[in-house]
Amino acid sequence: MEEEQLQALLRDLDALKQRPDDPASIDRMRERVVAMMNPAAGAGSRSKIKDMSAEVVDSNPYSRLMALQRMGVVENYERIRDYSVAIVGIGGVGSVAAEMLTRCGIGRLLLYDYDTVELANMNRLFFRPEQVGMTKTDAAVQTLSGINPDVVLESYSLNITTVKGFETFLASLKARSSHERSTGVDLVLSCVDNYEARMVVNQACNELGQTWMESGVSEDAVSGHIQLLVPGETACFACAPPLVVASGVDERTLKREGVCAASLPTTMGVVAGLLVQNALKYLLNFGQVSPYLGYNSLKDYFPTMEMRPNPQCLNPACVQRQKEYMDSKPARDAAAKAKMEAEASAASECPVHLDNEWNISVVDDEDAATSSIRSTADVLPEGLVRELPAADLYPEPPAAASSSAIDDDLEELQRQLDALNSS
Amino acid sequence: MEEEQLQALLRDLDALKQRPDDPASIDRMRERVVAMMNPAAGAGSRSKIKDMSAEVVDSNPYSRLMALQRMGVVENYERIRDYSVAIVGIGGVGSVAAEMLTRCGIGRLLLYDYDTVELANMNRLFFRPEQVGMTKTDAAVQTLSGINPDVVLESYSLNITTVKGFETFLASLKARSSHERSTGVDLVLSCVDNYEARMVVNQACNELGQTWMESGVSEDAVSGHIQLLVPGETACFACAPPLVVASGVDERTLKREGVCAASLPTTMGVVAGLLVQNALKYLLNFGQVSPYLGYNSLKDYFPTMEMRPNPQCLNPACVQRQKEYMDSKPARDAAAKAKMEAEASAASECPVHLDNEWNISVVDDEDAATSSIRSTADVLPEGLVRELPAADLYPEPPAAASSSAIDDDLEELQRQLDALNSS
Repeated sequence: MEEEQLQALLRDLDALKQRPDDPASIDRMRERVVAMMNPAAGAGSRSKIKDMSAEVVDSNPYSRLMALQRMGVVENYERIRDYSVAIVGIGGVGSVAAEMLTRCGIGRLLLYDYDTVELANMNRLFFRPEQVGMTKTDAAVQTLSGINPDVVLESYSLNITTVKGFETFLASLKARSSHERSTGVDLVLSCVDNYEARMVVNQACNELGQTWMESGVSEDAVSGHIQLLVPGETACFACAPPLVVASGVDERTLKREGVCAASLPTTMGVVAGLLVQNALKYLLNFGQVSPYLGYNSLKDYFPTMEMRPNPQCLNPACVQRQKEYMDSKPARDAAAKAKMEAEASAASECPVHLDNEWNISVVDDEDAATSSIRSTADVLPEGLVRELPAADLYPEPPAAASSSAIDDDLEELQRQLDALNSS
Repeated sequence: MEEEQLQALLRDLDALKQRPDDPASIDRMRERVVAMMNPAAGAGSRSKIKDMSAEVVDSNPYSRLMALQRMGVVENYERIRDYSVAIVGIGGVGSVAAEMLTRCGIGRLLLYDYDTVELANMNRLFFRPEQVGMTKTDAAVQTLSGINPDVVLESYSLNITTVKGFETFLASLKARSSHERSTGVDLVLSCVDNYEARMVVNQACNELGQTWMESGVSEDAVSGHIQLLVPGETACFACAPPLVVASGVDERTLKREGVCAASLPTTMGVVAGLLVQNALKYLLNFGQVSPYLGYNSLKDYFPTMEMRPNPQCLNPACVQRQKEYMDSKPARDAAAKAKMEAEASAASECPVHLDNEWNISVVDDEDAATSSIRSTADVLPEGLVRELPAADLYPEPPAAASSSAIDDDLEELQRQLDALNSS
């Protein structure tokens, strides 16, 4: 589309050269150039969409997402527009997570980073060479707003580990946004690459009682993990700290001169995918939200575990959230009980199994004939044929006695017994 | 960068309006527009790089990949430039796989698809709204050449399930490329979305004896898989076909009117990541290449399995490859034995363990003192402190007899025994 605009510009320039006294054509060119400078609002990009539609047409960017409802995976997909997600660290994992949420039509995204794009980042997805020198948050907003103008994007180019940066971070998480349906954020995704920043996200989320998810990739680029942290309910990041940490110096200075960590777009893409999938399950209430999921790419091994909070945690806000969680246990139990009872009474009014994947039906004993059950399963929709001969079609046993004959024998036996007893 | 070019264009237009009789300025504008139409060659993008460098500078796009060598993950990362990979199907999985391989610096990529970009594809990664209407292969080449100009890209906008398309597909897989170091392709990645196309890729790879990897995502968007297929050695795609397939009609027509499959950028991103990770392990010879890996996102469950070829496979080329594989067994066994012996003799000349993660050292019995071992492990590099008090530092047992005292006792006992025996 931009190609077309440039072609038109070329034609105008050629025409102008033939007839140099046409100031109107200069104005027209000016308009084209301004339109190209604002690609999100220009031709070629799409305009905003008020309501998500499930209509199946090529021009509907949400058709494949709304299909999740029809498939029974998600009850109400459009609720995603009500949610705000903060992503801290817009690097190899965070940028891809932001793009995934943007394409899924999340309501609002808050992006935090203080770094700029470098050519050395090009071995991971998302950033492009022409963005080198831009702040990562600005470059992300540029790309994401072009992909989906429906998403409200907020960009914070700051370092959350400074005092001022932390204050802004905390305030932005609490703030009621301009986005009409949202207050504060619903989830924080940590995609940072160092211990200090993780401890800062942990501190903020413990203070706010904010649920968050942690992610990380190893220095040798071949493993990673994601983790769900619910203040007071699960272990916080300080509950089980690493045994050795940097002290009094910037972690980066610990690394040897001229040495850098390895990274791969594959590992980071997988970790971002697992992270955002977990976030979607959490926000849209489907599947099982994983408390911890590891990824060892050398062996394709995916360990899981759960971590309870540490009552001796050194983070006072964590201990406070643990106390509140314990105090609210009776109320939680009562609510769970009420919900179970409501579901049980609702269930008694409708069939136990609404779907019937295996075509199981209750057959009246009188009419029972195994062949009739098989013939129902055998009927395929038009246009489908079996690829292999049905191997489970055993020939009928040659000497098969009919079930009614067996019944007759039993009845005859019972009559004889009754006769013996009464005699 | 393009922003700057547009700004310059605006200034030129404004100047031209003041002084309309300046044809030179029109030529200058024309040059700017042409430069913008070819962004890969323009300012802002990077030039080609002759050799991959491990130098750690922000301007080196390969520093984080070459670091895989220093970390001991990959023996020779730069070999990736010698490899050619064909990707069939440039959709939600194939396009991301192509971007990952491009950013990893693969030598040559062959891209096959016959479809065009639609807004309905925007819920998956890679394509942008302004590319709507372009063929997927052209749009992919546009984006990928901008990301990494070192990769040789070949675009095939064709349907491999037609007779003519299949011929071109087969010929392109066999062709010696213009890329100096490559003949044919080293790996085929199938990222198609239907059974017919998978059977065509299977047929081509069986005929050529070409190793390939299959990928797929379920219609409800919440699960997927990848699979390695080595003709003759593993099951081919026809060895264990699905029980029910479309016959005589286009699979697409089987789908109900107005109904479309669901898709998610998360599931497709994870499958693309697992697929390319497996491809990297296969090409660069590290880790364990997975024969089959499933992904159930609702439960974060990742099943694995292996499938031997079916001697009764209906695909004649598969049966032929199986025969060749059996016939070559003695030669394979001999080669494996020779390799093992060579490694064994090499191993006898150097230490068994080159790395020593746990700081284990052999201590001379004469000088043995447990405290000295502990003190070595206790020394941390400068700038590191322990986060927790060392819980494994038990107080010394109060009545601990020194080991030399015990030795003295034993020696005394031995002397007494000797005395008894000699008396």
